[in-house]
Amino acid sequence: MVSLDQSVKQDQEAIKYHNKKMVLDIIREHRPITRSELSKRTGMSAMSIGRIVAELCEEGLIEETSLTSGSVGRKAVKWDIVPDGRYAIGVDIQRRQLVIGVMNLAETLVHSRNIECTTQSMTPDQTVTLLAGAIGEMLEALQISSAKVVAIGIGIPGVVDHENGIVSLSEALGWRQVPLVQKVEQLTGIRTIVDNDLKVKILGEYLYGSAQGSDKAVLIHVGKGIGSSLILNGRVFRGDANSAGELGHMTLEPLGTLCECGKRGCLQMYIDDRALLSEARKAGQPMDEITQLFDAARNGDGWAAELLDRAALYISVTINNIMCLYNSETVILSGNFVEQYEPFLGLVHRYCAGVVWEPFRSSLNVIASELKERAIILGAGALALQQTIRNERGITS
Amino acid sequence: MVSLDQSVKQDQEAIKYHNKKMVLDIIREHRPITRSELSKRTGMSAMSIGRIVAELCEEGLIEETSLTSGSVGRKAVKWDIVPDGRYAIGVDIQRRQLVIGVMNLAETLVHSRNIECTTQSMTPDQTVTLLAGAIGEMLEALQISSAKVVAIGIGIPGVVDHENGIVSLSEALGWRQVPLVQKVEQLTGIRTIVDNDLKVKILGEYLYGSAQGSDKAVLIHVGKGIGSSLILNGRVFRGDANSAGELGHMTLEPLGTLCECGKRGCLQMYIDDRALLSEARKAGQPMDEITQLFDAARNGDGWAAELLDRAALYISVTINNIMCLYNSETVILSGNFVEQYEPFLGLVHRYCAGVVWEPFRSSLNVIASELKERAIILGAGALALQQTIRNERGITS
Repeated sequence: MVSLDQSVKQDQEAIKYHNKKMVLDIIREHRPITRSELSKRTGMSAMSIGRIVAELCEEGLIEETSLTSGSVGRKAVKWDIVPDGRYAIGVDIQRRQLVIGVMNLAETLVHSRNIECTTQSMTPDQTVTLLAGAIGEMLEALQISSAKVVAIGIGIPGVVDHENGIVSLSEALGWRQVPLVQKVEQLTGIRTIVDNDLKVKILGEYLYGSAQGSDKAVLIHVGKGIGSSLILNGRVFRGDANSAGELGHMTLEPLGTLCECGKRGCLQMYIDDRALLSEARKAGQPMDEITQLFDAARNGDGWAAELLDRAALYISVTINNIMCLYNSETVILSGNFVEQYEPFLGLVHRYCAGVVWEPFRSSLNVIASELKERAIILGAGALALQQTIRNERGITS
Repeated sequence: MVSLDQSVKQDQEAIKYHNKKMVLDIIREHRPITRSELSKRTGMSAMSIGRIVAELCEEGLIEETSLTSGSVGRKAVKWDIVPDGRYAIGVDIQRRQLVIGVMNLAETLVHSRNIECTTQSMTPDQTVTLLAGAIGEMLEALQISSAKVVAIGIGIPGVVDHENGIVSLSEALGWRQVPLVQKVEQLTGIRTIVDNDLKVKILGEYLYGSAQGSDKAVLIHVGKGIGSSLILNGRVFRGDANSAGELGHMTLEPLGTLCECGKRGCLQMYIDDRALLSEARKAGQPMDEITQLFDAARNGDGWAAELLDRAALYISVTINNIMCLYNSETVILSGNFVEQYEPFLGLVHRYCAGVVWEPFRSSLNVIASELKERAIILGAGALALQQTIRNERGITS
């Protein structure tokens, strides 16, 4: 039990902190802005605003800009954020590459870099060493002091214990119980946050891409694995153990094919790349890459088109099931099925018209990811900014 | 577009209103409580607290209580809510009965009444007239002035446009586009709020029943129809059109039995009472009521036990699908399957051990509804209190 005095003190600190974050958010949104407008928008007293503005200014996050007002010609002091006052780094760790992006306080991506490497065959330590080295080089080349980097945000495929910074299980990378945050912080000296890649991706799409303005959006990823993530009321929905959205083990057929997880009829047994390649092999068409299947379908091979058609049906059934539970307004499809096989989105639209419950059809909006592969570094950078601004350690610590 | 001044004024009003609600909430939670403790807990100045306390007192919502403090014998003034300072009415409209409950400001049910009637064969106006009459009689018998009733909350089966107070479609009652709130307000003169019965029910379970303390709980109802509702971070989740949780039209078998909605394999074709009675007929065992099926299974009829066993399997598959999406911590089962057929919960537990994805099994908590049929009137009463306290028209208007 926390004592009353302790909890009250925590509450007051939290309120102060919340107010400071709110002022910075409003300056970013309405830049540039006068102090009196800030006071009006927040409902806070001129004195409180003055104190917070002075703090933010001293910390190098905002600055004065002088503008001549149109009506009487007097100079009105306005406040604006300093775009290069702070930075966040967004990282996307995949099977075959690392992608690193640097985002400034205006949430603009100022630089990004892809590093080809087979993380899958590297140890977590090797990957972290490579990553930390690349970040160091990028910051040096951009002449950014690491003291100006509020945090590194990382998106990674798999089950991530976001709160404790541990990758619980990443089948794609072959990682299990990796204390990633600790390792990265040790080598870089920069605060680090890690999250599941699809949760980071939908944050990117929500802030900068196809889900902008939609408070209830679902992202479904089909390609190497299947998964989903969700925005509810403007925030990434995590569930009880940050595992909301584990579509792959939803039951598509109660008495269907046995999955490696031990249960029957899991969705991933029917529609991710591995499942389709295995079906192709059964049909006497062995191939290594799902893109070969896309090519075959494009070239008019009936069996390939049939496999992709069935995958589109199953995705549509899944969209119906998600709609029945969440009643969301936007469904974003990402992954190589929709990004590398152009007819796929059309197929899903056609099936949805039949398999989505009628009352939901008119409002249903199934679209392709807009940011594609950039969504993860953008979302990871945004996560880094958000969490540091929100967190008690704060953007200025 | 709302002008800056307008939006600022609205913001300020909202903050004032929010603070007043917060003070009342804290008094209710920590009753009785001193002014200085209130000030500490809210982080608000003694002056602001003094003003709000004076307002609440004048409105008859709270009162002074004098207590002798243990240590020095001085009298410390504490504040407490006045339980009968205000009331809320919770209503549960079902096919065959109306249930009405009266709840006081301490959220205690002070009186309830069941009225047997076949609402199904009555017009909405007849039902509303009966309801309004019964509410009037109850208030008179309890000597409660209608001015003291902040609102009537109503839970009703079907698709409800909660914001506009319209029952869009209730198959159970045969209602379509009924402006229920307007009708009830006209006859009673009391502000009215209507919502889907399962959304109201989970609110009841969350505040007073089996989901207390669980911020992520799902309620699944199986009996006359199948449906669900969800608590997320302490609030009922509505989805885009208040239709989140429409389990009945989730697809259980992509190529399964055709449903009246026009698509194949909807869950409701397999597990609600109608589906099971239809299966029983096919097996040469015609019966009118699902309770007869329960009796047959209890008496050792293999075919009846088999049907209920299969329903339990399908419910378990559905629980897995919900867990994969929501990753919730508590699943509450309600409805006559679990309430009137004792072995049902055990069957579901047994199947869940097989068909729920392994990482979720250890934390999964499937329990029966605690409040049973009282959950709806309690939840509807709570909804009435919450919405009036939250709403701009306010608890005191």
